[in-house]
Amino acid sequence: MPRLLRVAAAQVGRIDRGTPRAQVIARLIALLEEAAAKSVKLVVFPETTFTTFFPRYLITDGKELDSYFEVEDAETGIANSANVKPFFDKAAELGVDVVIGYGEKTPEGTSYNTASYVSGGRVISKYRKVHLPGSFDPFNDHPDTTNQLEKRYFKPGNLGFQAFRAPALRHETRSPIIGMLICNDRRWAEGWRCYGLQGVEIMCIGYNTVAWAPELWGADPNMDRNDAREDALFHHKLVCQSNAYMNATFCITAARCGLDDGKFELITGSMIVDPEGYIVAENKTDTDELIIADIDLDACQQGKTRTFAFAKHRRPEHYGAIVERTGVVEPPEVV
Amino acid sequence: MPRLLRVAAAQVGRIDRGTPRAQVIARLIALLEEAAAKSVKLVVFPETTFTTFFPRYLITDGKELDSYFEVEDAETGIANSANVKPFFDKAAELGVDVVIGYGEKTPEGTSYNTASYVSGGRVISKYRKVHLPGSFDPFNDHPDTTNQLEKRYFKPGNLGFQAFRAPALRHETRSPIIGMLICNDRRWAEGWRCYGLQGVEIMCIGYNTVAWAPELWGADPNMDRNDAREDALFHHKLVCQSNAYMNATFCITAARCGLDDGKFELITGSMIVDPEGYIVAENKTDTDELIIADIDLDACQQGKTRTFAFAKHRRPEHYGAIVERTGVVEPPEVV
Repeated sequence: MPRLLRVAAAQVGRIDRGTPRAQVIARLIALLEEAAAKSVKLVVFPETTFTTFFPRYLITDGKELDSYFEVEDAETGIANSANVKPFFDKAAELGVDVVIGYGEKTPEGTSYNTASYVSGGRVISKYRKVHLPGSFDPFNDHPDTTNQLEKRYFKPGNLGFQAFRAPALRHETRSPIIGMLICNDRRWAEGWRCYGLQGVEIMCIGYNTVAWAPELWGADPNMDRNDAREDALFHHKLVCQSNAYMNATFCITAARCGLDDGKFELITGSMIVDPEGYIVAENKTDTDELIIADIDLDACQQGKTRTFAFAKHRRPEHYGAIVERTGVVEPPEVV
Repeated sequence: MPRLLRVAAAQVGRIDRGTPRAQVIARLIALLEEAAAKSVKLVVFPETTFTTFFPRYLITDGKELDSYFEVEDAETGIANSANVKPFFDKAAELGVDVVIGYGEKTPEGTSYNTASYVSGGRVISKYRKVHLPGSFDPFNDHPDTTNQLEKRYFKPGNLGFQAFRAPALRHETRSPIIGMLICNDRRWAEGWRCYGLQGVEIMCIGYNTVAWAPELWGADPNMDRNDAREDALFHHKLVCQSNAYMNATFCITAARCGLDDGKFELITGSMIVDPEGYIVAENKTDTDELIIADIDLDACQQGKTRTFAFAKHRRPEHYGAIVERTGVVEPPEVV
């Protein structure tokens, strides 16, 4: 008997540095309402969904920087600033499970790039982005520069890769196994495999991925914008499709996209990928859009029981380098 | 200054169970001669190049089984049965480096699925396939059945993933860093990453990949042959392109392809992939064919120094599950 589930990626378009939070929340609630009206049970939202992608700016004003972060409620785990609460209230009211990313500030003042799985008015599981791209230092402090200052604004996630059950999505006696990754994490096979080794069936990934930033990439500053965008989309799809296949899991990717501030372009690429690595639904626009698919979780079994039956085929005794070193150690030159 | 190198995949077409070895060797030598005439410096040949892909058969005759294996010369490391020696002699004579796969039988009688990097009449490095697909037992002993009995005929490789230098391909003071994988290994990100952590610049991969075997896959026995072939090719390309990108390495894949015995179809897909994951050259036929590209090894630097600068971005403290468990441990069901 198939384990059918209707899921969606909620793509979110342009959000500027000055876009009022209430406007953003209203748009997110519209996506939630569309999802509920269409009987979607799980919606994945992007990374740092409530705000523009602020790590592109060198922000020296502490008050502005604070405005990009949420503190979580001690009891429910939900981000609870007054200006995002209506989103979570609406999700609970509609009975839709959501994955949503935001800047998290702990009560002790530590900052993380976080995604939470929220169901029935509670955080079921939380993930803090492990693979922060970019650097601590801006390479250029001109206001039009696209920086990638995540290492400056966030600590690397300290929760590892913890797969979990989503009981609200249960079929008979079995609840789906969920994993979360954030943006750059999707390019790192290690995170995927840690989830794969927990039997993940739905990988949820939100992201902000720059479509054109030659200064940041160390590329030709005159590179063609269309080529750059296609290149970024190609890499995004390639890593999501292949890692979904190699771990026999569905994957839902949700983009924050559009031309933020009228000049900083982010790629689209919101999609739902099946456990064989095929795209089964994808975005048609570069603005707010719900991408929906009916998936059968049992489709994971072909991969998990054959080609990628880990217990039969993996050889961890040869994988030591993966945990024993961080960077590259080249073989010695032959003299 | 670019580090240019002309490389090739040597795709090898149909070889039947009864094809005389001398015929195979003559075809391989023709490919070597074409490579040398076109100034190719490195040629990658398939898995078990000298014979048909014998693990598809249940072979109970010890003498026939032995005929698929090579013993290596104690001094040079080269497979030295009289009927393959002309191939290695020709490679040495032409000054072409080769990667070639074959069934290896050690002097102690242990069997491996092996690939050797041969240069100047010596084995520079040897790889034994780690990820053996299939099972020990045939699921059907009818002679027309496509089995996958590698676990029956080979021991899992015991040499790990050892990257090495190819001094014959040196530019000024730097020799390229090479890695080898065999067939099913290419679907396992762990092997790629172990090589990536050694700075690999050219991954060499030979394979025999079945194009249509629904019994083996547990799929619909009436599945469309064209769909099945396209599916197998899609997965082959997906994992090679993505793992090349995620490890910022070139990748050369060489297929044993064609309709062996007139009924067992193997996919093509011989290609050269760049460190950004793009295919720069690929096969046009399903028979013997040399696929050539001029590559610039310095193109690996974009990935190795930016997105995939491992030392800056990896977090091995969270990757423990990869070495601590072989199979899946699911999170407990929520009651």
